[in-house]
Amino acid sequence: PKSFRVVILPGDGIGPEVVAEAVKVLELVSSKSAEFDLKLESHLFGGCAIDDSGEALPASTLKACQEADAILMGSIGGPKWGVNSKVRPEQGLLALRKTLGLYANIRPANLASESLLAYSPLRPEIARGVDMIVVRELIGGAYFGARKEQNVEPDLDTAWDTMIYSVNEVQRITRVAAQIALATNPPLSVHSIDKANVLASSRLWRKVVTETLTSEYPQLIFDHQLVDSAAMIIVASPKKLNGVILTENLFGDILSDQSSVIPGSLGLLPSASLAGAPTAPTAANFKPTTGLYEPIHGSAPDIAGQGIANPIGTILSAAMLLRYSLGLEAPAQAIETAVRKVLDTVDIGGHGLRTADLGGKASTKEIGDRIVDVL
Amino acid sequence: PKSFRVVILPGDGIGPEVVAEAVKVLELVSSKSAEFDLKLESHLFGGCAIDDSGEALPASTLKACQEADAILMGSIGGPKWGVNSKVRPEQGLLALRKTLGLYANIRPANLASESLLAYSPLRPEIARGVDMIVVRELIGGAYFGARKEQNVEPDLDTAWDTMIYSVNEVQRITRVAAQIALATNPPLSVHSIDKANVLASSRLWRKVVTETLTSEYPQLIFDHQLVDSAAMIIVASPKKLNGVILTENLFGDILSDQSSVIPGSLGLLPSASLAGAPTAPTAANFKPTTGLYEPIHGSAPDIAGQGIANPIGTILSAAMLLRYSLGLEAPAQAIETAVRKVLDTVDIGGHGLRTADLGGKASTKEIGDRIVDVL
Ligand SMILES: CC(C)[C@H](C(=O)O)[C@@H](O)C(=O)O
Ligand SMILES: CC(C)[C@H](C(=O)O)[C@@H](O)C(=O)O
Repeated sequence: PKSFRVVILPGDGIGPEVVAEAVKVLELVSSKSAEFDLKLESHLFGGCAIDDSGEALPASTLKACQEADAILMGSIGGPKWGVNSKVRPEQGLLALRKTLGLYANIRPANLASESLLAYSPLRPEIARGVDMIVVRELIGGAYFGARKEQNVEPDLDTAWDTMIYSVNEVQRITRVAAQIALATNPPLSVHSIDKANVLASSRLWRKVVTETLTSEYPQLIFDHQLVDSAAMIIVASPKKLNGVILTENLFGDILSDQSSVIPGSLGLLPSASLAGAPTAPTAANFKPTTGLYEPIHGSAPDIAGQGIANPIGTILSAAMLLRYSLGLEAPAQAIETAVRKVLDTVDIGGHGLRTADLGGKASTKEIGDRIVDVL
Repeated sequence: PKSFRVVILPGDGIGPEVVAEAVKVLELVSSKSAEFDLKLESHLFGGCAIDDSGEALPASTLKACQEADAILMGSIGGPKWGVNSKVRPEQGLLALRKTLGLYANIRPANLASESLLAYSPLRPEIARGVDMIVVRELIGGAYFGARKEQNVEPDLDTAWDTMIYSVNEVQRITRVAAQIALATNPPLSVHSIDKANVLASSRLWRKVVTETLTSEYPQLIFDHQLVDSAAMIIVASPKKLNGVILTENLFGDILSDQSSVIPGSLGLLPSASLAGAPTAPTAANFKPTTGLYEPIHGSAPDIAGQGIANPIGTILSAAMLLRYSLGLEAPAQAIETAVRKVLDTVDIGGHGLRTADLGGKASTKEIGDRIVDVL
């Protein structure tokens, strides 16, 4: 059997609890298959790593990640390592993204099950059928441009950041969005987001997106939306942006979080951050590529240690890991189907087995066990 | 009677139609009062000005605005002057803001009437009671920092913008937010938005907001929210951000548009952009200050010329004009009360008099006339 190294970064807060369930799922699919074998190894990352060694991303963790085929993360951070701390968990995350070249952040936002409609803050008729995949550029823009802090020469009273993009950076993320759009039949439409009526970096963005999609992917339908207008549409009529939402780092941070509350619980949603660079203009799926996979929720210190967090976002992240980094589509789909089945099961009380975020009483472990059973 | 000069900029699309109704309202309150007299004068601005003279903000319009006590604008722009045109209406707007020093953009988002709950995309129990005022810094940040376009030396393949803030710029907008919070009894809470876990300009922002509010307005309650988290909260549980939302230019552009769809129709909401600099740390209302007032909706070319646009956002903008720039609180409140009454009136069909955006059949003029009647 083909062997894959998967690094597990449980992290802080509810991270270890939700990761434990995803690990059970990964171990099951590995043991059931004669074709592949997953070698899982756990490492310290985030706040727990700061407590251990003073560093959010210790050298040994980074090395393991660099040598791995894929990384599964829980969540990091917490009040203990807040904004005023010298070393902060987020710095480790930004360093990991940059060092591994994880430029493509992929976050689907859709209702895994019709039975979850009731948990959306949007009216059911507006939320029903929302199916967006945000493709966010993750290692450029204002996150990694030059900056100057306050109280630093030459002007002590100002601080600034640079939103900067190069043609290459926009091309490669546009290709990722295009490949994802083409993986569906018929292809999804692509909605590129910018603020081209004000920002120079957005004008470059719009021009390169247009040129890349027109010349390399003539079969795709795409449009451009201003970021302020997109933020309106995502609340008022989100289905208008169904398909792939292609966006730069800072706008993607905002819009992906905004869209993620439509499905009702943050606990349900997975994400992938990929280093792969599909350069050929083909309709083929990704070549397997290194990636970091994590649920989109945070470390939720308020419920940590209680065993009540929803593990589904992490389990679906594990499915994305199998698909994008290991090229194992069949087990990825099997996990997604099992999750949908568990969410759709209606028990005597009229509810499926649900964690507290979805109005239920099930524990993290019960959800994980049920998904393992269905698999 | 005290005399005030008010410049009217009808603009493009539905702008002239909605402005005509607000002008009727202003003329009525002026003729009814023995204490003040409004001198209204119309000028070209935006696309219509480009067609007339090649300039979005002709010198004569700018001069009139500089000499006015206040400015009422309709809306500008349209497909005729799109992103690829050499001269664009938005450039005129940005120049007007900068030249007049209109640094404080104020946008309330609330349900003018319980009867409008049905038009919110959010579930009624989530939308009911939403009452936010976005205070957005309007002439700093990435909008006016140094920038470099693509195909310009030294690096032809990159483009960049600078998000820059000075201590002074953050102080003065913080004071505006504080004064607005203090105009309500008990004072509103202030929610300051930034991305301090990544951006240097946000770290300056957070520090200066904290220092200014703590030292000058110790009676106010405030907190800090990351912009991505705020974008989630505005959809999932917007009441958590009730009060004043204090934010820099680009985040404010996104979040104010996002919040503006909660009340169901963009046609209802007004905005003010002020030059005033309340420097004294007092609980008093603003000293009257130059301002530009406009509905938050755009020029809506699709319905322009049909006489069906909702004039209420413009009429409420006129009320803000009376309050903030002319110091006339009584007629401002009278207009707001009249608008609420018209929205609340239920006629035989079970609906109040409503324009098409709110499911009705009333014309722009019928709504304006009815508000004039009630006044
Ligand atoms: C923790 C923070 C630096 C990070 C970001 O802004 O990218 C987070 O919000 C995310 O979206 O993964
Ligand atoms: C037209 C555009 C430049 C403007 C802005 O981004 O400020 C608009 O979106 C607004 O919010 O008034």
